[in-house]
Formats: sequence, C-alpha cells, structure tokens
Amino acid sequence: MSKIATAEILCVGTELLLGDIVNTNAAFLSQRLADLGISVYRHTAVGDNPERLKAALAAALSSADLVITSGGLGPTYDDLTKETVAAYFERPMELDRHSLERIKTYFAKTGRAMTKNNEKQAMMPVGAHIFDNNYGTAPALAIRDDVKNKTVVMLPGPPGELIPLFNEMVAPYLQSQSDSVLVSKNIHIFGMGESAVEDKIKNIMTDSLNPTVAPYCKEGEVRLRVTAKSHSHGQAERMCDEMISRIEDTEVGDFVYGVDVGSLENALVALLKQKNLTLATAESLTGGLISEAITSVSGSSAVFRGGCVTYTNEIKSKLLGVSAQTLDAHGAVSAEVAMEMARGARLKLDTDIAVSATGLAGPDGDGTDTPVGTVFIGVSTKNGENYIKLSLSAMRSREYIRLVSAKNALNLAIKAAQKMTKN
Amino acid sequence: MSKIATAEILCVGTELLLGDIVNTNAAFLSQRLADLGISVYRHTAVGDNPERLKAALAAALSSADLVITSGGLGPTYDDLTKETVAAYFERPMELDRHSLERIKTYFAKTGRAMTKNNEKQAMMPVGAHIFDNNYGTAPALAIRDDVKNKTVVMLPGPPGELIPLFNEMVAPYLQSQSDSVLVSKNIHIFGMGESAVEDKIKNIMTDSLNPTVAPYCKEGEVRLRVTAKSHSHGQAERMCDEMISRIEDTEVGDFVYGVDVGSLENALVALLKQKNLTLATAESLTGGLISEAITSVSGSSAVFRGGCVTYTNEIKSKLLGVSAQTLDAHGAVSAEVAMEMARGARLKLDTDIAVSATGLAGPDGDGTDTPVGTVFIGVSTKNGENYIKLSLSAMRSREYIRLVSAKNALNLAIKAAQKMTKN
Repeated sequence: MSKIATAEILCVGTELLLGDIVNTNAAFLSQRLADLGISVYRHTAVGDNPERLKAALAAALSSADLVITSGGLGPTYDDLTKETVAAYFERPMELDRHSLERIKTYFAKTGRAMTKNNEKQAMMPVGAHIFDNNYGTAPALAIRDDVKNKTVVMLPGPPGELIPLFNEMVAPYLQSQSDSVLVSKNIHIFGMGESAVEDKIKNIMTDSLNPTVAPYCKEGEVRLRVTAKSHSHGQAERMCDEMISRIEDTEVGDFVYGVDVGSLENALVALLKQKNLTLATAESLTGGLISEAITSVSGSSAVFRGGCVTYTNEIKSKLLGVSAQTLDAHGAVSAEVAMEMARGARLKLDTDIAVSATGLAGPDGDGTDTPVGTVFIGVSTKNGENYIKLSLSAMRSREYIRLVSAKNALNLAIKAAQKMTKN
Repeated sequence: MSKIATAEILCVGTELLLGDIVNTNAAFLSQRLADLGISVYRHTAVGDNPERLKAALAAALSSADLVITSGGLGPTYDDLTKETVAAYFERPMELDRHSLERIKTYFAKTGRAMTKNNEKQAMMPVGAHIFDNNYGTAPALAIRDDVKNKTVVMLPGPPGELIPLFNEMVAPYLQSQSDSVLVSKNIHIFGMGESAVEDKIKNIMTDSLNPTVAPYCKEGEVRLRVTAKSHSHGQAERMCDEMISRIEDTEVGDFVYGVDVGSLENALVALLKQKNLTLATAESLTGGLISEAITSVSGSSAVFRGGCVTYTNEIKSKLLGVSAQTLDAHGAVSAEVAMEMARGARLKLDTDIAVSATGLAGPDGDGTDTPVGTVFIGVSTKNGENYIKLSLSAMRSREYIRLVSAKNALNLAIKAAQKMTKN
C-alpha cells in the first residue's frame, strides 16, 4: 500500500459558516496528523449543502492522499457526508447490522427514545472500515480506494466524539497503513521564550531529522514536540527519550517542567500528590485564575485546600493578615505584600505551600507610578519565602497579563514543591 | 454599485495547518458578515505558499462577491497575500507614503527598531482602499473591481488587530457599499434552553423577515440576534427595539438578563456599579471560576471586594464560618451549606451581596449517594438568603459542570441585585 503523505481537512456544518462555533476540529486534526508525519495542505469548511460539499471533496481529493471530514454524520436529512463520499467512490450504501445494534444499545443506556432517523446512521458505503463510536450515536468510518491511493476518513463533528475517536481508532488505523511507527513526546517549558529556546538548541534542531524537534508557543509557554520514526514502537520511544535527555542537558533544561504532562496545573497537582504536599492560594490581580486552574484538574481536592481572592487592601489584611504598615510602606503591588499574602494563606489554610499574585492587570493604573503589567508572585513554605517580579508590557491585554501571572504562580509552586521532601 | 451578497473567508498561515493556532478569525468574520446580511459559503485555510494561495483565491472569487483574507500581511518574504491579490487583479504595487509614516511612528512609540522589511508593509496595490491599523504595523486594505463586482478585503492575522479593524473600519466600508443599513442587537438569555426559547417565540421568529431573529446557543446560554434592515440607522434601531420589546413581553422575558451586554459577568458588574453595590464570592466546586469571571471585567475592583475558595469542610468552617453541625447534618453539597457559605462571605467581606457554589463536579463522587452534577448555588443579601439546586447530567464533563455552575451563580447575583435599592 502506498504511503499517505498529504492530507486535507474538510469540515461540514452550516453552524461553522454562521460563526456559531469555532472550528477547533481542524486545529486538533492538523496537530495529530503532523505527529503522524502527514502534511496538511488545506482546511475547508462548507455548509450542509450537497453540491458544495461534493465540489469541496473533489477539490481536496484532487491533490491530497487523505481527506479527513468532520460533521454531517447525524441522523437528519441534511447530514450528507457519508452519502456524498460514497457517491464519489461509486459505492452503494448498505445497512451495517453491527452499527445498528450499537446505536440501539446506546439509546437504551442513555434512556432516550431512538427515532427511525437514527437508523440512517447505520447505513454505510460498501467496503467501509467502521470505527465504533463509544461517545455518541454516529459511527466513524473510512473508505479507501487502493487503485487511486485515496483515503477518506469521516468523523462526527462534536469534539467530544471526534477527539477520542481519532486518538483511539483513527490514528492506529492510519499508522497500520504505514510500515514505520511514529512516537511523539512533548517537552513542556516555562519561563524561556520561543526564540531563546530555539537559540539554545538550534544545532540539535537543525541536525536532527529523526527524531524531529518542533517548537509550539502559546501564552508564555513553549512546547517542543519530539517525534521519532522507527520500525518498532520500543525503538521509537528510546529515540525520543535520548533526544529529550540531550535537550534537558542544555540550558533549556532548567526551564522544563515536565514531559507529556499536559499543563502547568496538571504537573503541579501530580507533583503535590506524589510528595503528599498541600497547597493554598492568595490572589489579587488574578482574581481566582490560579485556584480555578488547579481545581480544573480531576482529583485536585487531594492536595488543594482552598484560597482567598483579596481584591482590596482591607480584605488582604482581614483574610490574610497582610499588615497595614506593609501596605502603606510598599503599596499593594510589592514583593513584601506578595510574600505576606502567601504566608498568610499558608498559615490560615494550614498548608505546606502557598502561592500569591498581586499586580496591575490594567487597562488603568492604580494612581501610583507603578506601570500596568507590574506583577509580584510570592511563594511561602516552611523552608522560607520567595518572590519573582514580572514586568509585562502595558500594551498587553488585561486577559494576557492575568493569564501569564497565573502561569508564573503555578510554575513557582512547582519549583517550591520540587525542593521539598515528601510528607 | 452591485450589492455584495455572498462571501468566502480565506485564512493564510502555515501555523493554522500545523494546528498551532485555532482559526477563531473565520468564526468572528462569519458572525459579523451574517450581521451585515452577507452569506458565507466557505472557509478555506492555506499555508504561506504562493501557488496554493493563488489557487484558493481564484476558487473563492469564482463564486463569491467578496473574499475576506486574514494573515500574510507581515514584513517577511513569505507574507504574500497582498502581492497575490494584486497579481490576480493585475494591479502593480506602489509605496503608500501615508502608511509608511504611520509604521515609522508606531515603531517610535513602542520603542522597537524598525527594519527595512517593515517598509514592505507600506507597499500597496494601485487603487487599494487602505484601512489604518491602530493595533499593529500591517495596514489592512480592500481592492474592488467594479466591472467584475468582486471585492477582496485583506486583514492582518492576529485577532487583536483583525477584530477592531473589522468592527471600526471594514464593517462601515462594506455598509457604505449598500443602500440599506443593517442594525443588530443581541438579547442575552439565561436559564431557558434553546428549544424552549424557540418554542415560546416560534410565531415571532417565523413571521418576521425584517427584523430577523436568529438564536445562538452556547454553554447554557441563549442569545437572540435581532437584525433590522432599513434606509436609515435610526429607523433600523427602532425596528430592533420594537422587536426586543415584543420578545421581552413573552415568557422568555423573565430569562433576559440584558441587551448587548456581552456576558453575565459584564451585566453583573455594570448593574452593581449602577446601584453602588458590593459583591463577594464563596466557592467550592467552581474553585475560583466565579471570581475569575467577575475580575476579568475591567473596573470590577469598584464593586468586587474578594472571595474565598473553600475546597475542604475544614476550610469552609475556618474561612466562612460554616458550622460543623450543618456540614454533618446536611453534607457539604446541600442548600444549607450553600447559604451559610454565602452568608459567611457577605459578613466576613462586608459586602451587600455574596454568592456561593457547592457541588460535585466529578468525575468521581464524594462517597455519598449524591450524584455527580448536583450543585447548590446560594445568595445572601441583607434582605435574606436564597438558593437554587442544579441537577446537571453526570455524563457532562467536569469543565461543563463547573462552568454552568459559575454562570448560574452570576445569574443569581444579577437577580439579587435587581431587587435591591441603590446604595
């Protein structure tokens, strides 16, 4: 079988063209295809319109080896992706009894009534490869034409179905059509900008074709995706791990907070659990962003006890015991107040670690000389207190300043936890 | 001049095809074009590749009256949108001195060094209509071919530039090419589902062609966009207002929290400011989402004093004074605890209103019979206390349960504030 080298993504749904939903599927699929070594040349979104869908499909298949569609697999008359693709490949539709049984079982389990329409979701083009959908009613499917070397994979539109279906079934299916195995691992970096990271590992990045190292940058974070290709999964894993060690041995290593850890909050909660440490937060400008990030992690209640959002000086004193003298002498946006906030939260909530954030998110200043974007992040543990000062550009949005402040607080908590012994 | 009736959106940037960024521009532009009465038929995203960009542009212009591009206006050699569009319309490029001066001033103001490359951003196709960019270095532009009735509007890729440029300059430009005026207003509804809303105002929606009423649904909220077309702005405004009154007179009216207010948190902060009322929060399952939403609003410090995130029973007692007896008798997920949390926050932070949330966000339960998705939202004011109970499906994600809980808390705070007199 010929290799799949190029792909296009074709998203179907009038709600996309109305701007009612953002097309996150195209970004997700692009990332995952890049991981599989497949180059994406174009994204297209069309409405639930058979003529335009047909034209878009033909255009995509005229150049790409693989087309992945999302949407248009639902039960109603205007869901036409399967039928359009079947017509393109001249395949008749037939009832797939296995899919029909699964759809019936799904409805029985969720206690909803199945309509006649839903049977349409079990109609499949002859010769299709079917991916059972454990997350909804519409099975996903693939049609492959070996003569033309064209493959179309059809996925349901809701990301809650598309993402797990792709990861669990479509990615292995695409890999099985290749005689090599690809393994990707992500190095998570915080506190060093993208251009600095690239500068420090320039030689490694340009020298290495396998594994490849690709940087991704988002809201103050850098992620390096290391992808190795080999004949065996074990060998590809080892090649990734060796590359990760090489990168960690550079100056970049000091800024790595984990490999395949998902996010700062995930890494922090995992580390606290592993060391049996507890955490509290004290927030001013971030207004709850830090605690919200931590509690977004399932199981965070094992390590997170709580926090205080103290938006006025009076409340900083009342809830956290920040002294009026410190507030008077240094102002609310100061290293001293950040550290007193963290100390107050640690003592009041009786935790091993507390982090704090105080600063000016803007757009307006606080009437002093302190520029918008000035932020102090504090941390307190039984080993002592510490702070960092951020000077973010006042031209950044309030949203960005708050988010980057919260990320710095999470990172400072990780660093503090790393230095502590297990409880 | 012929009317612009149809549009395609063409986004340029390899980062889109790598999945490194999500294409939010396509959704934004689609919504705004719908407001202007222009139908969007297709979204396309291509990389920084001149041949594929050229093909995509030709395909888009073969059917649509208007093509809006985003991206590819930067200073580097692979930013080629302007050049490709100019070649399509057979227009030579020339230096626009006005744009060059503005770019120079922009660099001087931000204290950065201007490179020779940036001059490229002032090169414009002959006859282009230029939109000054107050948010970045790349001016936006439009090219119009009156004979073919084709217009291409080119916008820079960063949403922080594209969004204000479209709203402030491109929308009026497109409107000026039409002899009628469109005005849209958004009715924000919370607490009634999309199908219930549609059911209550079915007659109004189907009877009315001008203004039109279109529903949009997102995370527990429904928005109705009312769009009126007329010869004068004032008349279109009046038509919108009349329709809004008609809708508010139905049962839907009880669930309307504002018109063109942006979001629950925006409506809440505006209302509190108007009535000179202060607010505090007490959060368990939402972990800071409520306070984070409130403090995301600029100027919220005038009304928001702070909050407590109390993730354990002990901390609920310690910070908010929730009694151990109540916790024992009713459990942490109960109406009684929700109200004691709100009362505690109001008294401790000395505010006019406090809202609270306690519940099970899952995926795991708390060892009792209480199902995941059970949430109590409390509110306390000097006039008394109140609560609502939510029974969200345990099949919903942790993220969804937390978000909908936070939105319900904001809505309950709005209702409480509406009943209070001005301070």
